[in-house]
Amino acid sequence: VKYELFYWPELQGRGEFVRLALEDAGASYTDVAREPKGAARMQRLLAAQRAFAPPFLQAGKLIIPQTAAILHYLGPKLGLAPANEARRAELHAKQLTIMDWVVEVHDTHHPIASSLYYEDQLDEAKRRAQIFLAERLPKFLGHFEAGVAPRARISYVELSLFQMIEGLRYAFPQAMRKLERKHPRLVALHERVQKRPRLAAYLGSERRLAFNQGGIFRHYPELDAH
Amino acid sequence: VKYELFYWPELQGRGEFVRLALEDAGASYTDVAREPKGAARMQRLLAAQRAFAPPFLQAGKLIIPQTAAILHYLGPKLGLAPANEARRAELHAKQLTIMDWVVEVHDTHHPIASSLYYEDQLDEAKRRAQIFLAERLPKFLGHFEAGVAPRARISYVELSLFQMIEGLRYAFPQAMRKLERKHPRLVALHERVQKRPRLAAYLGSERRLAFNQGGIFRHYPELDAH
Repeated sequence: VKYELFYWPELQGRGEFVRLALEDAGASYTDVAREPKGAARMQRLLAAQRAFAPPFLQAGKLIIPQTAAILHYLGPKLGLAPANEARRAELHAKQLTIMDWVVEVHDTHHPIASSLYYEDQLDEAKRRAQIFLAERLPKFLGHFEAGVAPRARISYVELSLFQMIEGLRYAFPQAMRKLERKHPRLVALHERVQKRPRLAAYLGSERRLAFNQGGIFRHYPELDAH
Repeated sequence: VKYELFYWPELQGRGEFVRLALEDAGASYTDVAREPKGAARMQRLLAAQRAFAPPFLQAGKLIIPQTAAILHYLGPKLGLAPANEARRAELHAKQLTIMDWVVEVHDTHHPIASSLYYEDQLDEAKRRAQIFLAERLPKFLGHFEAGVAPRARISYVELSLFQMIEGLRYAFPQAMRKLERKHPRLVALHERVQKRPRLAAYLGSERRLAFNQGGIFRHYPELDAH
């Protein structure tokens, strides 16, 4: 099967969690909206309500929206999840908690509405980010630190945790400098994932978009802890 | 199998989506935290990081956190989802979009932090709720209205859509009065689900908790559209 991934062409965003899995597995896929006329094709499928929002994956006739559902579907096919249903369900639940975490990261800079500019919700963003860094980020990091099995086989959840560390370092460098000391297993996992040959090749390629001020992880110094 | 559901004992909240499925199917289950010593058992599992947050489901040795993952697991077992993997993945993606919707409803009254009182984020809540009602709620309702198949078999997704309509009517009666006119299929679906015998019995029983100011759906008149 050739997979077709539909996502905003200029952002890592939620699409990146799927890209990392496809790239790490060496799967054959198209990042549709980055191809000629691809963005229009994505818009047509959205207008037809085939998905509420990107990312979504097309595999033959099947269209699967939602990042975590895509990874649940692809996992065993890419060798990034066990086939056993119970183990697969546990892994999927972890990914869903990562996706909840992603929403909370996003909402640090857009606590009122995604449709408003950052500058028009700056006061609220400062308030939300401060509590996120003090309460929520340590809670999420602590939860996943406890779950790291240093020698276990890499699944799509570990690839996603790599991306969380990458993104959090970009967005909140000061806060992460302090927090990483308390989460050595996550830091080691990030390094282990980064060295995987196909993933390292992807990260050094033009296919890997840079972090920017349009995605989930944005660096606004005034939101970072000092 | 006897299922054990772990959720806050005084709230409908996210646990209610699971309760509706178990009740509609006539499944044998325990709502653990509402039993003697059950709340302490839930806290022990949370402290051991077996789940990031309630709800979670225990089935034998297996523990599955995350509302949508629980429903994905239970669906075929309860006769509330097809066994076919592709159809099951599509259904699951719909449930995930409902869960995204739930976060946005919750954040209308808690846009800054769940750990702060509503009164301490009232100005922000008014701002967020206004944009939610004007932009996001119509977008979610329109998406699901387009997907209603009036004669299709009921799955856990339709049970969850029933709960969304119930909750939104409680939280935003003024806004919903206007919006329901434009979404007749969702209104009809709500009625159809409400009349299912086992579900109707549940809704009339003491097991169905009332909406209150501790859950996802809260009625603050100042947040409703006029």
